[in-house]
Amino acid sequence: MPQTVDALVTSGAREPFERSTIERRDPGPHDVVIDIAYAGICHSDIHTAREEWGEAIFPLVPGHEIAGTVAAVGSDVTRYSVGDRVGVGCFVDSCRECENCRAGEEQYCLRGEVGTYNSRQYADGSPTHGGYSRSIVVDENYVLGIPEGIELDVAAPLLCAGITLYSPLRHWGAGPGKKVAIVGMGGLGHMGVKIASALGAEVTVLSQSLSKEEDGRRLGAQHYYATSDKATFKELRGSFDLIVNTVAVSLPLDRYLSLLRLDGAMVNVGIPETPDSFRAFSLAGMRRSLAGSKIGGIRETQEMLDFCAEHGLGAEIEKITVDQVDEAWDRVVNSDVRYRFVIDIASFDA
Amino acid sequence: MPQTVDALVTSGAREPFERSTIERRDPGPHDVVIDIAYAGICHSDIHTAREEWGEAIFPLVPGHEIAGTVAAVGSDVTRYSVGDRVGVGCFVDSCRECENCRAGEEQYCLRGEVGTYNSRQYADGSPTHGGYSRSIVVDENYVLGIPEGIELDVAAPLLCAGITLYSPLRHWGAGPGKKVAIVGMGGLGHMGVKIASALGAEVTVLSQSLSKEEDGRRLGAQHYYATSDKATFKELRGSFDLIVNTVAVSLPLDRYLSLLRLDGAMVNVGIPETPDSFRAFSLAGMRRSLAGSKIGGIRETQEMLDFCAEHGLGAEIEKITVDQVDEAWDRVVNSDVRYRFVIDIASFDA
Repeated sequence: MPQTVDALVTSGAREPFERSTIERRDPGPHDVVIDIAYAGICHSDIHTAREEWGEAIFPLVPGHEIAGTVAAVGSDVTRYSVGDRVGVGCFVDSCRECENCRAGEEQYCLRGEVGTYNSRQYADGSPTHGGYSRSIVVDENYVLGIPEGIELDVAAPLLCAGITLYSPLRHWGAGPGKKVAIVGMGGLGHMGVKIASALGAEVTVLSQSLSKEEDGRRLGAQHYYATSDKATFKELRGSFDLIVNTVAVSLPLDRYLSLLRLDGAMVNVGIPETPDSFRAFSLAGMRRSLAGSKIGGIRETQEMLDFCAEHGLGAEIEKITVDQVDEAWDRVVNSDVRYRFVIDIASFDA
Repeated sequence: MPQTVDALVTSGAREPFERSTIERRDPGPHDVVIDIAYAGICHSDIHTAREEWGEAIFPLVPGHEIAGTVAAVGSDVTRYSVGDRVGVGCFVDSCRECENCRAGEEQYCLRGEVGTYNSRQYADGSPTHGGYSRSIVVDENYVLGIPEGIELDVAAPLLCAGITLYSPLRHWGAGPGKKVAIVGMGGLGHMGVKIASALGAEVTVLSQSLSKEEDGRRLGAQHYYATSDKATFKELRGSFDLIVNTVAVSLPLDRYLSLLRLDGAMVNVGIPETPDSFRAFSLAGMRRSLAGSKIGGIRETQEMLDFCAEHGLGAEIEKITVDQVDEAWDRVVNSDVRYRFVIDIASFDA
């Protein structure tokens, strides 16, 4: 029998959240029922709910940075047991048959993966609802284990912000001897600094101002530059093997590309609303690449969680109650958070 | 003593060629004196001389697709002997000290390599003059050997068109099991088809029309599509591992990027005059890359010549006399050449 559970629901692009309830499906043989402890707030929750990325499915329950514990398991579940600490990220299903799914890159599923919210289940087209809720039911193959050694609250943002940075840093070879720049020192960027540093790269933050320099250095950056200062681009010309850009507004790409050495890559993980432009010679002149990357697959997300546990990495968070989400969203839009809001789901009890 | 040699000289951006003479330096200990047999006509000769890429140094003698034989060698030359068949490409010197030169990627010399023409020698700032001339004097380290098995006339265009395609095809792993698209079926593109096919890739030509389909298939393409047909982009969506774009005008990049599968790369070797634009999601949605590449280093250019000899590859050429160059340039601008003009330098005798 479906379960009725507490959730934060928004009913339209300009509507505030209301405490309400949603139905969670009766667990099938491969399903895991998760009691959610914490849900991170990702900027894409806001873009989606405010329909900045297109029409959304209302009523909407956002949240794809989910950490909690297993409350029940279906009859055929082998990977998790009741009481296990688990997480759910940006998707809860994929076709499992296309070449990308078979390669463990479910985030690039050719059928289109099923998003954790604002998406539709393959089977019956019913809308998915995310982590701003008491519990969620997910196929065990799309559930991650959260190792001992990371608290659930600081683990939650790893499920999106963490993997969004870990995946390109690994894919483009961040490690000892590599100079890596992280553009933007926000929810994504601060995880980039931590992870790139733990991978052994020499990390530089490129931020609009120096206001977060102290934090950046504490999290592992060896260098910190303001992009509002023109001298930065002159001084760092030809320096980096890899630039991971977490900023979701169009940047003057030619200037950033000039910071790459031979064969360097600039990887965008933020998606600006407007097209980007560049001059072909900015690439050809030093065989540079411009690329993009989107979260990570299940296998790699687990690898990331294990890596973070091993290195004692979690997100820097501000914990809030379920009644503070509207306010928190406004603060995210104003870049006024250090560095990720996490909703304490237990505050539904208050 | 400097030698006075015949050359085709243009004295301004709108001036025709005149038969005239230039001075070639007395060979130093490391210099090779080359009797030029053939010089290819590259579109960049035209861009340069017509100042479409900025101010040029006049009087100008273009030509960086040079094939000939060694006429004399300096006292310390060890790599070549009189009578050897040799070539010269796009540059005749580089700093030899920067990290890129040391890596054998002299085309990305951080000091700026010395172009074969329209450039200045490091030592005395004297202008360089290219292959539209009887002979040239080049440091042996910047001279290529042309193996037996390629005629000098069809070898000449390999020194720019050949390496411009060979280098990215190798760098991005074209070979058996890889699907490679070549955009544009001109001087560069036709060499891309030959080389990618010889490397064992499955080659598709993406050309504006099907007018050169027969040639494309003869040169090794397995598929040939017209980009003027919208169905092409639908049919080929997500197909390619690698797209090498030889077209020097801005393309609708998002449409081309949609043709790449997961982790595919689109590499531009043509340099449009206007900025290119794309949407970030075209890259991030399938972890694609946009890149650029510029000719190749000396070591790789030699490797390319050896590869072409081994596979019996040369350019498809139309041979012309020194008095037909103005006309040939106009035809290049109108894409009316199959597929490369080569100047027969012996026609100076006529």
